[in-house]
Amino acid sequence: MIPVLFGRVAIIGAGLIGSSIARAVRERHLAGTLVVADRDAAVCARVRELGFADEVTQSAAEAAREADVVIVCVPVGGAGAVAAEVGPVLKPGAILSDVGSVKGAVLEAMAPHVPAHAHLVPAHPVAGTEFSGPDAGFASLFENRWCIVTPPDGVDGEAVTRLCDLWRAMGANVEVMSAKRHDLVLAITSHLPHLIAYNIVGTAADLEDSLASEVIKFSAGGFRDFTRIAASDPTMWRDVFLQNREAVLEMLGRFTEDLTALQRAIRYGDGEALFDQFTRTRAIRRSIIEMGQETAAPDFGRRAAEKPKHEQS
Amino acid sequence: MIPVLFGRVAIIGAGLIGSSIARAVRERHLAGTLVVADRDAAVCARVRELGFADEVTQSAAEAAREADVVIVCVPVGGAGAVAAEVGPVLKPGAILSDVGSVKGAVLEAMAPHVPAHAHLVPAHPVAGTEFSGPDAGFASLFENRWCIVTPPDGVDGEAVTRLCDLWRAMGANVEVMSAKRHDLVLAITSHLPHLIAYNIVGTAADLEDSLASEVIKFSAGGFRDFTRIAASDPTMWRDVFLQNREAVLEMLGRFTEDLTALQRAIRYGDGEALFDQFTRTRAIRRSIIEMGQETAAPDFGRRAAEKPKHEQS
Repeated sequence: MIPVLFGRVAIIGAGLIGSSIARAVRERHLAGTLVVADRDAAVCARVRELGFADEVTQSAAEAAREADVVIVCVPVGGAGAVAAEVGPVLKPGAILSDVGSVKGAVLEAMAPHVPAHAHLVPAHPVAGTEFSGPDAGFASLFENRWCIVTPPDGVDGEAVTRLCDLWRAMGANVEVMSAKRHDLVLAITSHLPHLIAYNIVGTAADLEDSLASEVIKFSAGGFRDFTRIAASDPTMWRDVFLQNREAVLEMLGRFTEDLTALQRAIRYGDGEALFDQFTRTRAIRRSIIEMGQETAAPDFGRRAAEKPKHEQS
Repeated sequence: MIPVLFGRVAIIGAGLIGSSIARAVRERHLAGTLVVADRDAAVCARVRELGFADEVTQSAAEAAREADVVIVCVPVGGAGAVAAEVGPVLKPGAILSDVGSVKGAVLEAMAPHVPAHAHLVPAHPVAGTEFSGPDAGFASLFENRWCIVTPPDGVDGEAVTRLCDLWRAMGANVEVMSAKRHDLVLAITSHLPHLIAYNIVGTAADLEDSLASEVIKFSAGGFRDFTRIAASDPTMWRDVFLQNREAVLEMLGRFTEDLTALQRAIRYGDGEALFDQFTRTRAIRRSIIEMGQETAAPDFGRRAAEKPKHEQS
């Protein structure tokens, strides 16, 4: 049995990520006591039924009191409010962390509420599915996935190490970088792809009725996979774009410039420009395969095959 | 055993699609004699080694002579030239078809070369992988995939029926529609998704060196699946965009307008607009699942899991 890493672990927010952490912590015996808080009474009731927590409460403060590590798992727009609630009750030496897809804005929102005797160590597990809620989580979600830890300047090194150990114990590969760097990298690897997917599915939804139904019928040509991303949680993604505004706008600007050049090549029949562009993109694909970051099936950072039953319902 | 549908079947072009048709025809005993032509001597040699054809030749005309059905499987920009080559030798009652992703321009390019005693019945199997060449094909590629048949006005009904039967015998679901309609539907379900994928991967390739390497490392957040599409055959896709220019520019125009609206919402912090857009796209996803057009794993119209060995090499 892997040794217990923390005495009391509190998870605030029992959605896909929060409930997956809870399941992983429990399955791998990483906590003496596991507390899950969710402000939604129905979610709390469901967590009790699912039985993956030792204690369940609607109060974030109650969960965080006496906890050794508190992980905030709410949409990034809500992280500051949760920090304000739990900050005053954090015990000396407690680690406060989160799982948000944006790190700069979240750090800014949470930091003012963290007492000097506690340690704020934000993190972002790059993993997920397009499903939401406590039923959607599973213990293996983080296995062989990256977890990016973004410690603020001057934070206690021991706290950072302990949080990294927790993520490794859940199966993740840990990388440490600055919040600013994280937000720029994720803007192009994750945020922009999601924005584009939401957008193209929206464009299709606005087509004349008869055309829209044929788009659905023949969606297998590429479009279908965009619809999978575009089914992701709207609240989470709204917050991501609002909170990582600068980096997303920067990458979106570059993307649009490039797309305009391609559009021009199509309009003027410039086959050479198209061929050149379509050829050089193969090199990037090769790099990804060489780095072992590819699996047999594309999944948009998700693990769709493990949870297909949700789609049938 | 399924009865032989055609005496002599000629496949012109032994790439992914051509070699898959050849394998399917052979495996299901759909032809008395199966001839494969490819103008590339090395490809012909490889087809002989792979052994999925009765005859192999570099001459399209030689393959087409005496054939009951000739299927042109070359990038759409080359379909006219192949038609010019095989047209004069087509025997009375022969069916000339293709597999191009664009139908209007291909029909226009091929039609002038078809003698009155033969029948031009273009088709488009909506299936593929990101791999190319005679080794990439497999007999089950078309199973449960759509094949869209686009007969020109006034073409012999019996010829259309026979071509549809051939595709059904290879496991495909057949849909008949006009070339114009096909091109509009595919512009949004397939061509635009490919263009966007090529574009975002190109944008990433232009990033500062250190950033680009991190993009590759953390590509699992969504970007990685775009790189899969962007590894598709550059010649084929160059031709698609040149040949389906009008429909692609129309759909690209709509896409860009919508993306500009999203960009503005991000810039001005309009969370409500973002949330509304991200919510309504879920309905399209639901429709696709309800129509049974979804499988557990996303694959961009591909069957990646069946051919992962290519990626290891």
